[in-house]
Amino acid sequence: MHERYQSERISQIFCDENKLKQWQNTELAVLKAMYRLGYIDKKIYDQIRKAWLKNPINIAWWKNRDQETGHDLNAFLDERYRFLPTKLHQYVHKNITSYDTEEAPFAIMLKQALEVVDEIFTELHDTLKALALKYRYVIMNARTHGQEAELQSFGSRILTWYKDLKIAKDALDNNRRVLQYSKLSGAIGKYGSSDPTIEEETLKVLGLNPYYGATQIMPRILYAPIGQSLSNLVAVIDKIATDLRLAARSGQVLMREPIKKGFKGSSAMPHKQNPINWEQEEGMAKMATGYMIMLTSLIKTWEERSIEQSSVERVAWPDLFHVVVRSLTLLNKTLKGLRVYPDNMLEEIHKSRGVYASSEVKEFLKEKLSDSGLSNENIYRIVQLACFNVFEPAPARLKIRETIPSSFGEALISLNRFYNLPIERYVSLADIIPLGELKFTEELNIAPSDIDKYNQILKKLFSKEEVANKWFKLFTPEFLLRNEATLYWEILRVK
Amino acid sequence: MHERYQSERISQIFCDENKLKQWQNTELAVLKAMYRLGYIDKKIYDQIRKAWLKNPINIAWWKNRDQETGHDLNAFLDERYRFLPTKLHQYVHKNITSYDTEEAPFAIMLKQALEVVDEIFTELHDTLKALALKYRYVIMNARTHGQEAELQSFGSRILTWYKDLKIAKDALDNNRRVLQYSKLSGAIGKYGSSDPTIEEETLKVLGLNPYYGATQIMPRILYAPIGQSLSNLVAVIDKIATDLRLAARSGQVLMREPIKKGFKGSSAMPHKQNPINWEQEEGMAKMATGYMIMLTSLIKTWEERSIEQSSVERVAWPDLFHVVVRSLTLLNKTLKGLRVYPDNMLEEIHKSRGVYASSEVKEFLKEKLSDSGLSNENIYRIVQLACFNVFEPAPARLKIRETIPSSFGEALISLNRFYNLPIERYVSLADIIPLGELKFTEELNIAPSDIDKYNQILKKLFSKEEVANKWFKLFTPEFLLRNEATLYWEILRVK
Amino acid sequence: MHERYQSERISQIFCDENKLKQWQNTELAVLKAMYRLGYIDKKIYDQIRKAWLKNPINIAWWKNRDQETGHDLNAFLDERYRFLPTKLHQYVHKNITSYDTEEAPFAIMLKQALEVVDEIFTELHDTLKALALKYRYVIMNARTHGQEAELQSFGSRILTWYKDLKIAKDALDNNRRVLQYSKLSGAIGKYGSSDPTIEEETLKVLGLNPYYGATQIMPRILYAPIGQSLSNLVAVIDKIATDLRLAARSGQVLMREPIKKGFKGSSAMPHKQNPINWEQEEGMAKMATGYMIMLTSLIKTWEERSIEQSSVERVAWPDLFHVVVRSLTLLNKTLKGLRVYPDNMLEEIHKSRGVYASSEVKEFLKEKLSDSGLSNENIYRIVQLACFNVFEPAPARLKIRETIPSSFGEALISLNRFYNLPIERYVSLADIIPLGELKFTEELNIAPSDIDKYNQILKKLFSKEEVANKWFKLFTPEFLLRNEATLYWEILRVK
Amino acid sequence: MHERYQSERISQIFCDENKLKQWQNTELAVLKAMYRLGYIDKKIYDQIRKAWLKNPINIAWWKNRDQETGHDLNAFLDERYRFLPTKLHQYVHKNITSYDTEEAPFAIMLKQALEVVDEIFTELHDTLKALALKYRYVIMNARTHGQEAELQSFGSRILTWYKDLKIAKDALDNNRRVLQYSKLSGAIGKYGSSDPTIEEETLKVLGLNPYYGATQIMPRILYAPIGQSLSNLVAVIDKIATDLRLAARSGQVLMREPIKKGFKGSSAMPHKQNPINWEQEEGMAKMATGYMIMLTSLIKTWEERSIEQSSVERVAWPDLFHVVVRSLTLLNKTLKGLRVYPDNMLEEIHKSRGVYASSEVKEFLKEKLSDSGLSNENIYRIVQLACFNVFEPAPARLKIRETIPSSFGEALISLNRFYNLPIERYVSLADIIPLGELKFTEELNIAPSDIDKYNQILKKLFSKEEVANKWFKLFTPEFLLRNEATLYWEILRVK
Repeated sequence: MHERYQSERISQIFCDENKLKQWQNTELAVLKAMYRLGYIDKKIYDQIRKAWLKNPINIAWWKNRDQETGHDLNAFLDERYRFLPTKLHQYVHKNITSYDTEEAPFAIMLKQALEVVDEIFTELHDTLKALALKYRYVIMNARTHGQEAELQSFGSRILTWYKDLKIAKDALDNNRRVLQYSKLSGAIGKYGSSDPTIEEETLKVLGLNPYYGATQIMPRILYAPIGQSLSNLVAVIDKIATDLRLAARSGQVLMREPIKKGFKGSSAMPHKQNPINWEQEEGMAKMATGYMIMLTSLIKTWEERSIEQSSVERVAWPDLFHVVVRSLTLLNKTLKGLRVYPDNMLEEIHKSRGVYASSEVKEFLKEKLSDSGLSNENIYRIVQLACFNVFEPAPARLKIRETIPSSFGEALISLNRFYNLPIERYVSLADIIPLGELKFTEELNIAPSDIDKYNQILKKLFSKEEVANKWFKLFTPEFLLRNEATLYWEILRVK
Repeated sequence: MHERYQSERISQIFCDENKLKQWQNTELAVLKAMYRLGYIDKKIYDQIRKAWLKNPINIAWWKNRDQETGHDLNAFLDERYRFLPTKLHQYVHKNITSYDTEEAPFAIMLKQALEVVDEIFTELHDTLKALALKYRYVIMNARTHGQEAELQSFGSRILTWYKDLKIAKDALDNNRRVLQYSKLSGAIGKYGSSDPTIEEETLKVLGLNPYYGATQIMPRILYAPIGQSLSNLVAVIDKIATDLRLAARSGQVLMREPIKKGFKGSSAMPHKQNPINWEQEEGMAKMATGYMIMLTSLIKTWEERSIEQSSVERVAWPDLFHVVVRSLTLLNKTLKGLRVYPDNMLEEIHKSRGVYASSEVKEFLKEKLSDSGLSNENIYRIVQLACFNVFEPAPARLKIRETIPSSFGEALISLNRFYNLPIERYVSLADIIPLGELKFTEELNIAPSDIDKYNQILKKLFSKEEVANKWFKLFTPEFLLRNEATLYWEILRVK
Repeated sequence: MHERYQSERISQIFCDENKLKQWQNTELAVLKAMYRLGYIDKKIYDQIRKAWLKNPINIAWWKNRDQETGHDLNAFLDERYRFLPTKLHQYVHKNITSYDTEEAPFAIMLKQALEVVDEIFTELHDTLKALALKYRYVIMNARTHGQEAELQSFGSRILTWYKDLKIAKDALDNNRRVLQYSKLSGAIGKYGSSDPTIEEETLKVLGLNPYYGATQIMPRILYAPIGQSLSNLVAVIDKIATDLRLAARSGQVLMREPIKKGFKGSSAMPHKQNPINWEQEEGMAKMATGYMIMLTSLIKTWEERSIEQSSVERVAWPDLFHVVVRSLTLLNKTLKGLRVYPDNMLEEIHKSRGVYASSEVKEFLKEKLSDSGLSNENIYRIVQLACFNVFEPAPARLKIRETIPSSFGEALISLNRFYNLPIERYVSLADIIPLGELKFTEELNIAPSDIDKYNQILKKLFSKEEVANKWFKLFTPEFLLRNEATLYWEILRVK
Repeated sequence: MHERYQSERISQIFCDENKLKQWQNTELAVLKAMYRLGYIDKKIYDQIRKAWLKNPINIAWWKNRDQETGHDLNAFLDERYRFLPTKLHQYVHKNITSYDTEEAPFAIMLKQALEVVDEIFTELHDTLKALALKYRYVIMNARTHGQEAELQSFGSRILTWYKDLKIAKDALDNNRRVLQYSKLSGAIGKYGSSDPTIEEETLKVLGLNPYYGATQIMPRILYAPIGQSLSNLVAVIDKIATDLRLAARSGQVLMREPIKKGFKGSSAMPHKQNPINWEQEEGMAKMATGYMIMLTSLIKTWEERSIEQSSVERVAWPDLFHVVVRSLTLLNKTLKGLRVYPDNMLEEIHKSRGVYASSEVKEFLKEKLSDSGLSNENIYRIVQLACFNVFEPAPARLKIRETIPSSFGEALISLNRFYNLPIERYVSLADIIPLGELKFTEELNIAPSDIDKYNQILKKLFSKEEVANKWFKLFTPEFLLRNEATLYWEILRVK
């Protein structure tokens, strides 16, 4: 992984030093198992262990030897034999094959890397929980299809991120359970020269259990789901980051990444505050997908094994973990310093002219007008028309809209004309329906005569005081968001 | 492909009727080549041709036979033999293998499908050209990182879409050249029983040339780039559609998909006008990627062939073409009816408070203040500070921003408070710099004493009339977009 | 999916008829929930239910309406309203959004499709179990890196396939648990107009539980792991099919697909018996990967939803299930009729000249020669040399090997010369080591003087009778495969 | 990239030193363009150039600064400003944006890396050409579906590999042409503050041409096809390596990787000679696919740019190049030392009992028996039956085949029985057809009475001397491979 995106902790797990240390642990565990089961004398184990712990593995020597023999595990053994008297050689790596030594370390390194993920995930999850509580009553427009939909609190939106992450993490936790298994069942997994009891005892020393049904190696069907779960986790982070980027768009900035004092956003444009960390999350997700596909492709191998998986795993596992750790860390960091603009959220609501309650309005009118002879379809069209009406521009603005300049000079005129438009107050759905002020629009297919009729019916309806009273309640956060408490309870167990 | 996303024309190319017709064409072409080269009598060819043209292929019979023999090409031959006297059988499919019959049709069907793509692509490209010309002087904010950057015309933005598509199409056209090749070189491609001269003559009849180096089949390395180019083309369409979706976001709607009168945007929310076609383009791109990966994976096969490619190609090629055609068609249709809101584009510019010229401003000040003792870094910070200043909220609004409600009741109070804010005119970069009105902000690391100094320098600078005159020119479209003409010329050859 | 690869049962699950039936079920379940909770009168529910059950959904009418309105769920409601008096309309689809109606059916259809998978999986798993028992004592060479490794029984190899499939299926079963959840929480998932208690009751009617944290739709992070697990399952099948293809290679055919009487293997080459079904499994796996990638890419969506996922899911879920069902079915069918050639397995063993026990031999010599002054390295080289020696060709054959013909005439001479080679008996590792007949080879780096020394030591060692007795046991299946019983017990619980 | 798989030359191209050197080149080229076009004095350029060349870039300083500002290009400029008097600062990076500086270097680095690929590709291609010529007359079985098909020379098989690589390389060369283009068109690509003539002149200095239609960056649709072509190239290498692995399978070893003296194939099994390099090629291909998918996913970006592409490109381009270089190098190295066993190829032919000519035989009989009343179908079945007959085992062997042992003791008995089978000469298709010795088999659906009839007809036919003479010619390499010369001519221009 490029050093810019490396996690120091992940690097230390997948480095040669740690790998060879784990290999040595396996070899020692086999010896321990052998003496526990009575196959060798405890003294032999003690002697070997002492010699090895006293003489740390010389990585440079090993690399050199590996280049000569083309076999990294043999090179490791040769390095270790250097510190043992010849007569002890026979007890080392006895009756086992390279991957008997390597498989348990592989599982253990994955476990170690997942523990790093666990830790950072928990931090991020806690950050989100804190934000969900902080912004529980800060209201904003929800958006479906990028269009204003209904109202929500910013807190409850954060809850969906929180839950998405939980789902992704639960799947990861489910799929990683296989890491408790490993094998020392020999060159083809049938215990040709090895012994199931030694396997069991060795793995017990290492905190693992035997997997029955291995070939020379553990089948990679075991690990693919872990790679997939990790990639899915980054995909969720990318989803959240994308929501944040959408909320950070200029013109209606709802939130922004923190900035460091002294930062520069662009070499050319000094005004820039770009959500580059959130954009980088998308880059991380694209990489994660690539590594996931590499790892998934390892399920298929020939017969009792072929070795194409080895190079891919040397690269894709650590690189995928770097990506996961970076994406979690980056999101956590930017959320911890998140700049939130509740006033801009209110401005969006204001500009949405009450349509956020269109669904409520429709149901309200259906109920109140159930005896009016209007069908569901009619009611739908009334509300739809009202929603279109509230967004219709004033004539002066409409004129600008419909003028296509034919030079940049004319463009400047339009721009100046725009600057000088009288400022308008927005018309709201809350107003034009009770007043029965629906108007014809070209964009919809509703006849003027029908509109007249609808206006009559609406005016009549709203002449009743209790109707009007209930009406305005439809547009209030208290009413609209009354059920968000359920989500807080079900997701966070917070009342 | 699901019928909802099918192109009728693509279906007709990849249907059994067309495939078997093409197979028959190859068999007839072989016979024609044989008589032309003197291997058989012309009469034999004529007899067979006449019999076959008189008796159309019975697809049902063929399917049934295929199920019995498990070999579709043999089943086809059996179907065709039905209409020939036994003594003519020996001339049919003589010295060739199944894939000798099938490869040329495969290439021809890909060519036919690509011609459909060509046609729709040209329509879309023409639509974009017309829009680029129409909106050549309609100005809007460009956005990098989702943030307002510099000004551009909407037309010139369309030019980049136009050019992206051209790049994608050129690569496709380059990569499809291999479709001129095919093979009739027998069961392993070494002309064991077949004859290079018959191959050459047969392919000439079919409008193709021999490929030297085939095995039983044409190597799939030939076709993978076509699948990749098609998928890339859809990726470009997705990019354009994404830009359109971003421009259609509520709150600052710059453009929208056309709607049909009578449409409904949502079953729940009658106000909705969702860019569902543009969102569907993303779905198409995701499918295209999947099919591209399937087709790319076919490059590798065992030895002189194995047949895993057959099932994948039966599915992925037609489905990829359906996706390509749909995505091109959908984009063209929505662009032809595109609803554009130039007034909203002006509103965005207006709200961006002149920062769209921050780069110009920086260069202008660098030049004018080169003797002032200010470094490039100082100038950068002056402009950066000014850009931050123009967006600072008035105190009443700031108060709303900083109030986090602790109930929905309080949220409603905030909302009402917001409704009642006095309307402010925006402060522009064009104004505060000449006036020397830079102010301290917490967000940047610029000392008040430096700011005082900067303000003095600025005031002094702008006291010169010619400086002020040039200054305001920096903010005009005529100045800023003066070089767009180059793009129109280079891309469209339009002055 | 191309009709050739369709599963009828999967088609029926994902067809419009079933989908709309499920939509109707949801709408009825909402009504039932409403009367149960006292929101409406039971009579209303009964009336609507009766009217709808009496009037089946008219798919053609619906499709037509969908084309007009561009909204399939609204078109469905319109179709259903036709059979209800206007006054009942208001109760239908009340307070919910389209995806409230559609999500539960989506989960239910996935569950139905998975039940089809379950059934076929069980059949396949049973077939494998039966084969593992049948061939428990049929011996063969295991292969790592395509090279003969140690001995195994064919049965125990089947056990690894059995276990791989189990692992894949267990992960699928883990990941599908999320299908118990669904949502009716309204347009943005915050219960704006809907009601958590109605959601809960409705889902109970449908056999499901509420998911807390949805937006307009269920987050797709829930379903991606199911698609991944299905694709992984096909990857395992492809792995098994590849092992079978490798075992079916001509020259040393260990097993073959069943054939139908009357089959034709090739239009050109009548001798062919091609493993086309197993090769097709690879095609299925490539498709599965493509669909998996499509489905995985749906995790990311904008804000409270955008609709790119819809087209992809309409295509990729059914097509992936078709692929899964076909691949399971095909493998089961070909395994049920598997043609096995135990004699050819023995021939392979015979031709491997005893090297299958090289690991045992090495450990045996390490132990017996621990006082001889030979290091582990020396012992390794002794056995390596012996293994190279046994494969050295006789001089006449060596001459053919080293002759590169310079014309096809010379090639024919070589071929004839080969036909006339005297037939040789193979030399075995079991023989040359006790006899101390190691010879120098160019290919290894072992000095002749060392070889002499080794031969002396070996001769001396094997002069002891009890050594020779133990020696030959090393090469027997009883000894080598003694631990396979553990696998039968642990995997199948069979003694 | 993991150091084990790194190419030193690729590392040097993508290292920080080279990147920053290229950035400096662009900045200097802009200055040169400016003085050439008369915008600045030549002295300014000279002064800056001299100062920079004298003071090499301090990578550590730059990295540190990058961490402070979070902007690598600005940090680079700051590093360079250190060596310039303040009054020269204004000329540096004037009117351009970061990516104006970075894009040309990006293209140049890709070009440099592709030149490394070119070189190694040419070596590999030359190696293959030499092998194709060397083995032009060495004959072997071709294999379709893993089954013996027709005869071929090993040389002509190598030709197909040679041609596949050429196709892949030609596509790469086509797709890389876009690397001649770059941009300096400013922050949004519309030359807001920059100047098309300076862009043109600057790029001329760098050996490049302007791309019209860029945004802030070059559209990534330009580069995706290069990544795809590189990945396709590795896929072809994987295909070749797979053919080699299949040819290296024990039991019938046709060729093997070279080994170094002193090598160890396995820590457990001293006899092993594993094709681990060829297997690693598959690993390389899997990685290449992953990187290709990452790079392809960059086509889509938001509006005038977002920065998700940056991290992916920092990782995926160099890593993809490392993979490409390694896969080319590894194949070349193993082919240069390829161990080929022509005798084993002859053994395969011998064991295939003449069926390699089954297609010829069928056509021969069709022609000779056209007046016999036998249909094409009958002739097919005669040859099919003969081909099945020649592989029927002798009774003693059949007995072993049909005995399923029920213990390992019985397995040993079978094995010993097999060792003691009398050695049989193979029956050939060349013999049993002329002798009319077809026999009934359970596996095919041909009635004994028909077989009798066929035998009569065959005997009669072969009683003619000239028929018999022609017959045996059918089985000779001279006849069967007569057309391979065409391939040598068309592909290598060798007669």
